[in-house]
Amino acid sequence: MNNINARIAKLSIFALLMNSVKTVSFLGSGNVATNLAKAFYKKGFVIDYIYSNTLNNATILAQKVNAQPINQLDKKTLDSDLIVVALKDDIIVDVLKTVTNISSLIVHTSGSFDTAKLGAFSNRYGCIYPFQTFRKEIETQLEEIHFFVEANSPEDMETISIVAKLFSEQVVEMNSSERKSLHIAGVGLNNFTHYLLSITKHYCEENNLKPEYLTNLLMQTVNNSFYVDGALNMQTGPARRGDVAIIKEHIDQLENSPKYQRIYKTFSQLILDEFHENQFKL
Amino acid sequence: MNNINARIAKLSIFALLMNSVKTVSFLGSGNVATNLAKAFYKKGFVIDYIYSNTLNNATILAQKVNAQPINQLDKKTLDSDLIVVALKDDIIVDVLKTVTNISSLIVHTSGSFDTAKLGAFSNRYGCIYPFQTFRKEIETQLEEIHFFVEANSPEDMETISIVAKLFSEQVVEMNSSERKSLHIAGVGLNNFTHYLLSITKHYCEENNLKPEYLTNLLMQTVNNSFYVDGALNMQTGPARRGDVAIIKEHIDQLENSPKYQRIYKTFSQLILDEFHENQFKL
Repeated sequence: MNNINARIAKLSIFALLMNSVKTVSFLGSGNVATNLAKAFYKKGFVIDYIYSNTLNNATILAQKVNAQPINQLDKKTLDSDLIVVALKDDIIVDVLKTVTNISSLIVHTSGSFDTAKLGAFSNRYGCIYPFQTFRKEIETQLEEIHFFVEANSPEDMETISIVAKLFSEQVVEMNSSERKSLHIAGVGLNNFTHYLLSITKHYCEENNLKPEYLTNLLMQTVNNSFYVDGALNMQTGPARRGDVAIIKEHIDQLENSPKYQRIYKTFSQLILDEFHENQFKL
Repeated sequence: MNNINARIAKLSIFALLMNSVKTVSFLGSGNVATNLAKAFYKKGFVIDYIYSNTLNNATILAQKVNAQPINQLDKKTLDSDLIVVALKDDIIVDVLKTVTNISSLIVHTSGSFDTAKLGAFSNRYGCIYPFQTFRKEIETQLEEIHFFVEANSPEDMETISIVAKLFSEQVVEMNSSERKSLHIAGVGLNNFTHYLLSITKHYCEENNLKPEYLTNLLMQTVNNSFYVDGALNMQTGPARRGDVAIIKEHIDQLENSPKYQRIYKTFSQLILDEFHENQFKL
């Protein structure tokens, strides 16, 4: 019964949506554009155009979603019901600069871009920010992901929310300032953590340390640091203790692993400074 | 039936052990000593002495395991069947320096200490290195943990392995040099990851970002970086792209979060250098 209700609800949402958003174009052909364009295509939207500065990149994605690749924008190519801008922040305004007064709803997908800037190009604008790391080559499942949405009118907020809810139950309204903070946190949670663990893993491989030795400690660490209150007080290890003799021995031993050595030294200094008030200099 | 066999096997191991190790003393009363002494006590070993330089610390632990606290060592206090040394690496030799020619089996618990150094104090020595992060206040479950063991004779290797197997199925023989590499990896997997995530989490709390927004990205990151081959090639984010404009904007925005700001700047520089050959200086 619940299942049937859920299906009816989904169908009516879709019917509602079909009145306002049937066609979509994408500006960008990178990691985010590729994942979103494919997801929209699978849900039954018509993808009109894929724009990229490099026509070849536009073509690769366009072929996958039955769209037309372009590397020039004009009024006609921005006539879809929804325009999704998934470009690097610092080129968005440049790419759109030839565009004036379009009637489409235009949304960007960036953590840091100020949504109001889209007001120069259309009077219907907003943001759909999927909070996850994407790679072109990997089809990310969107169901578990949070989508943070913003719009300049209640009507378009509803439209954008309905679109996002086709992909995930987790759709949250958030303004540009809060979203910027979230993005900055995401850089730590994803980019920095990824870099640290990739280099550490590489060091383990060089030294024939089996991954199964390591995963228990890693998962316990993620738990302790992220799910426990006052995690910083639970810091352990040589730098926490101020055990500079061991730290220096380790740094020496890492002379054949320069990348991990640099991380080791940098991080040990950060932790020494945190807990020993700049008393030690490596 | 399997259960009964397992119990019989455990009983005979225990009987075997009872011939060689009935009494245990601990040198140290910190995070590792506290967790191990309590675990040995629970398994039915008699704990003779807890040594600490600070008698008060020895007393706190000794009370929990029905042992005698001491802050002076002599032949009598090192007469237990097994002596477990869980002291900071750089004081182990100092603390033991008054000791000569004891007949007990003496083991240390450190990742970086060279086991052969214990040969100066006893001709029966080894190592039991539990690869996990411990805190005095938290009773860590030992079943899932890897124990890395070493000994200077096959007989004592067997004894040490049997003792370790009372706590965990994952007991692996490893020499001092390999163990040192493992310890260095553990510093990255635990200490550095913990520091990074604790500071990031604190930033999220300051900015009222709900943990449920963040955990999906974090778990995906751990997966991508640690369980996927060639993880470094999957690096994403502003520093990977060389998007210095966003990085600088983020650093400016972090002026009220100096700890996270420092991590942000340090890490972005590491990743810029990695992927853009020292082209950018923040």
